[in-house]
Amino acid sequence: MTEAPLTREDLLALDRDDPLARVRDEFDVNPDVVYLDGNSLGVPPRGVAERVAAVVEVEWRGGLIRSWNAAGWIDAPARVGAKLARMLGADGDEVVVADSTSVNLFKLLTAALRARPGRHVVLTEDTNFPTDLYIADGVSALLRAEGVSVRRVPRSRLVDALGDDVAVLYLTHAHYTTGQLHDMHGLTSAAHRVGALALWDLSHSAGVVPVDLHAAGVDLAVGCGYKYLNGGPGAPAYLFVARRLQESLETVLPGWMGHAAPFEFSATYRPARGVLRYLCGTPPIISLAALEVAVDLWLRIDMAAVRSKSMRLGDLFIRLVDERCAPYGFEVVSPRDAVLRGSQVSLRHSAGYAIMQALIDRGVIGDFRAPDVMRFGFAAPYTRYVDVWDAVDALSVVMDDGAWRDARYSTRAPVT
Amino acid sequence: MTEAPLTREDLLALDRDDPLARVRDEFDVNPDVVYLDGNSLGVPPRGVAERVAAVVEVEWRGGLIRSWNAAGWIDAPARVGAKLARMLGADGDEVVVADSTSVNLFKLLTAALRARPGRHVVLTEDTNFPTDLYIADGVSALLRAEGVSVRRVPRSRLVDALGDDVAVLYLTHAHYTTGQLHDMHGLTSAAHRVGALALWDLSHSAGVVPVDLHAAGVDLAVGCGYKYLNGGPGAPAYLFVARRLQESLETVLPGWMGHAAPFEFSATYRPARGVLRYLCGTPPIISLAALEVAVDLWLRIDMAAVRSKSMRLGDLFIRLVDERCAPYGFEVVSPRDAVLRGSQVSLRHSAGYAIMQALIDRGVIGDFRAPDVMRFGFAAPYTRYVDVWDAVDALSVVMDDGAWRDARYSTRAPVT
Repeated sequence: MTEAPLTREDLLALDRDDPLARVRDEFDVNPDVVYLDGNSLGVPPRGVAERVAAVVEVEWRGGLIRSWNAAGWIDAPARVGAKLARMLGADGDEVVVADSTSVNLFKLLTAALRARPGRHVVLTEDTNFPTDLYIADGVSALLRAEGVSVRRVPRSRLVDALGDDVAVLYLTHAHYTTGQLHDMHGLTSAAHRVGALALWDLSHSAGVVPVDLHAAGVDLAVGCGYKYLNGGPGAPAYLFVARRLQESLETVLPGWMGHAAPFEFSATYRPARGVLRYLCGTPPIISLAALEVAVDLWLRIDMAAVRSKSMRLGDLFIRLVDERCAPYGFEVVSPRDAVLRGSQVSLRHSAGYAIMQALIDRGVIGDFRAPDVMRFGFAAPYTRYVDVWDAVDALSVVMDDGAWRDARYSTRAPVT
Repeated sequence: MTEAPLTREDLLALDRDDPLARVRDEFDVNPDVVYLDGNSLGVPPRGVAERVAAVVEVEWRGGLIRSWNAAGWIDAPARVGAKLARMLGADGDEVVVADSTSVNLFKLLTAALRARPGRHVVLTEDTNFPTDLYIADGVSALLRAEGVSVRRVPRSRLVDALGDDVAVLYLTHAHYTTGQLHDMHGLTSAAHRVGALALWDLSHSAGVVPVDLHAAGVDLAVGCGYKYLNGGPGAPAYLFVARRLQESLETVLPGWMGHAAPFEFSATYRPARGVLRYLCGTPPIISLAALEVAVDLWLRIDMAAVRSKSMRLGDLFIRLVDERCAPYGFEVVSPRDAVLRGSQVSLRHSAGYAIMQALIDRGVIGDFRAPDVMRFGFAAPYTRYVDVWDAVDALSVVMDDGAWRDARYSTRAPVT
């Protein structure tokens, strides 16, 4: 017995019953496109434009230097970090907003190596997110004299590769290409059993997958502000250091914002308490203000409902691709079991680049990852069930009419 | 024979003849205050609010992920860097906007040490800007196994301390407390004579003092976007790598934005050409857009006129303090010779903190640096001669009436 094929009306009906439908109104969604790339850049929350205008016109122009205190700029990294902590299963004094994901990876990876003297291996997945791999290689090159090295293994071999020479297990929670989720709790426990620390990159999970850093026993984590968190293009990133480790870990990037008393302008660095020592330079206040609007909105969103809807959106997408695009040779490279999947579904096709360009031209925006993967992200707070229908419908049209074969779609732009 | 004391009318007359008077209209100056803290946070250029609104509403909301190409986000660090290069006596492919000053100092200091194998000393001034000192100490702690150390000496002993063990001479062009200028050309040449590189921090000079990196033979430089450059609170910073060194220096922070082809998402880092390899993570686009408005304005401003006016503003400030505040025990800690001075005048007074608070309460905004220094910055493009009069007038009133003795002015706020 097979189910009857889905119809657009079925998906509209799901939207009518969606407990998150009203949340969509809190985002400033572009009505002209079907946007399935919130995993790369989230849409703006409503109120960002007004907030950013106030930062420029009232706080910067009017308050000038006084706004460091009067407008709370100086506390913003800790304040926004404490709000984010509530989304991450962490305490408010364990998370701070700072720098970029890459720079934060560098800070915490070097700190983890310092915290495990005598151990020199960074263990990671061979297809971890590129910047994570690059930063690990950079750390290894920098500390070559000490024998630091990076061990890259396939995900299936991670546990076996955890030897007593491993200082830190260094992973991304949701895989950027496939959306596969790691078992954060299980892998962190495995790392601890051999005396290693666990450093997780939450960039592709926080905001769509419930994350509970305390429950998983995580030591260190970083994440991105501009993907599922909707903080704006290049929004500042964040980092987490478990309280039990905070006083024993040193930062190798001791900038003035991480000083215990930055405005003493002392010639000697004295680390700020706890996680605040991982601040480095002055944060970009305008971009940080946009991120704070997003984080404030997130705190009003039910994450369990997000996860439930997100899994369903992905399941429906896969089912519709199966029903409507079977002849075209797409391979679903994401787990079909939603429990094992973040909030994206990736399709492999040798003409994936051109097909995605043709889709974008028709107002359905996903993205492409070389060499052949089309990614469709489902940011549940603002993605409708009918968007899934419309996306697969457009895909079937592009394949049916061969539009993707147009030469203009095969020329690679630097960004997709 | 002494000159007649200055009058307010004298300064108004200078404003009437000021060739930069019309430039002031290009900044969105708060008319309610006399702002002499552009050395800590510059005022907004006109047009920033509109530009930032367009980034949020058109590029982010409307263009979404497409704006990385369509709105030129991906090229912004190189594009704005190339514009800045014109202010710095550098070529367009030698400057890039990235991260914070502190992070950039870390990148270039580690690169400089790698470029001078066998040399392990970072030579710096003992009262260099705190974050510069902290970062050097952080690098030294990180590379302790290799014997890297920091040699801090008074400015008078810098040349003598340049031994053949020095890898890099590491200085700030204009001193943050006193405004004293280093001889960039002479010290860079001295460093080169012993085989060391020279790394300059331009945070307190670029924008008020003509900087010619090529003429001075500088190897490496960094600078801040939010002080004299008016890029907005926490604006991204910039860095310079002389072309002759670009291909031989490695970055230890190899983030994805510094990859030769970031959107290939290759598992192996391959440095971008030239200075672009010093990009690391994704830049904060909204803050970067504000900085670009400022840099575009700077390119229309005559730097020779800025320097000339800036020196005159400082000279007049000192003369007025001499004439009107002699009884109060201020010590001018900046050079009285304008040629040796950046664009600030600092006064030492044991009650400096309270005096500055009382001044700020009267709408004259300078700042304070512990333990006893009041700083007055003269951002020539938007500071009027009459502002100098009004500032010293307020200072004399605060001292005359003893307002600064009010208890509320002696409680330290975290930021001044």
